[in-house]
Amino acid sequence: MNDMKVRVNAQSESATKTVIKARKFQFVVDEPAELGGTNEGPNPVEYILGAFAGCLSVMAHLIAKEMNIELRSLKLDISGLLNPARLFGKSFDERAGFKEISVVIKADTDADEATLQKWIEAIEDRCPVSDNLQHVTPVNIALKTVGR
Amino acid sequence: MNDMKVRVNAQSESATKTVIKARKFQFVVDEPAELGGTNEGPNPVEYILGAFAGCLSVMAHLIAKEMNIELRSLKLDISGLLNPARLFGKSFDERAGFKEISVVIKADTDADEATLQKWIEAIEDRCPVSDNLQHVTPVNIALKTVGR
Repeated sequence: MNDMKVRVNAQSESATKTVIKARKFQFVVDEPAELGGTNEGPNPVEYILGAFAGCLSVMAHLIAKEMNIELRSLKLDISGLLNPARLFGKSFDERAGFKEISVVIKADTDADEATLQKWIEAIEDRCPVSDNLQHVTPVNIALKTVGR
Repeated sequence: MNDMKVRVNAQSESATKTVIKARKFQFVVDEPAELGGTNEGPNPVEYILGAFAGCLSVMAHLIAKEMNIELRSLKLDISGLLNPARLFGKSFDERAGFKEISVVIKADTDADEATLQKWIEAIEDRCPVSDNLQHVTPVNIALKTVGR
């Protein structure tokens, strides 16, 4: 299969609020008041966990179909532990992002344990967001200034 | 500073559509028709790039303030290259997620090159999403079945 290029464009509307455009869609990223924001939308790390939930759900259904698992309903609870000290420049002892992420997948299904174990392993292996969180991804950041 | 626990709850509404709740907010994750979805919202990897843009923007403003950089406007273009073969189970030669992510930060500022170089380095180092994409994060996935 060919590589896909996924793109978004973002415009800062304030120190904490950003409007994202992805194809025909638009969504707002902000920070809650306790992190200095105007609370007009979920914050970046909540979108990360939401994207992870959405990706796991797509994979769960796709792989259930492949394995003939009947999946009557699916819910996911995801949480992550983060210390904001580095973000605020108070300390550089800990990493900036999530230290760990916990996922609970609640599935209504009659499939047996061994089948479900294979299902979960395939979901985790084939989910793009799971891969990008659990492994290193090269990021290149370029700056273009328009003031000077 | 104390650790923060960030949480989301997700409900699958179809094989590709997931509704995410984060505090008082709700957002929809879906897939476009060409990836088998109903296209009712951005897809998971678009949310990942949007979250990255939002996080970089928050850090850009916070660190500009610390460094006395006047930032008149900020836009970001982010793209990522992904091969869907593993997602669809067609081939396991390549990773599931983004192979690389490219960020262009467009800043309207008069600050000098050396100052802006330090600014960009601090943004990248202190941005939680940048950390989680560029480094390994432990993920634990637990399954709870309700059918049996």
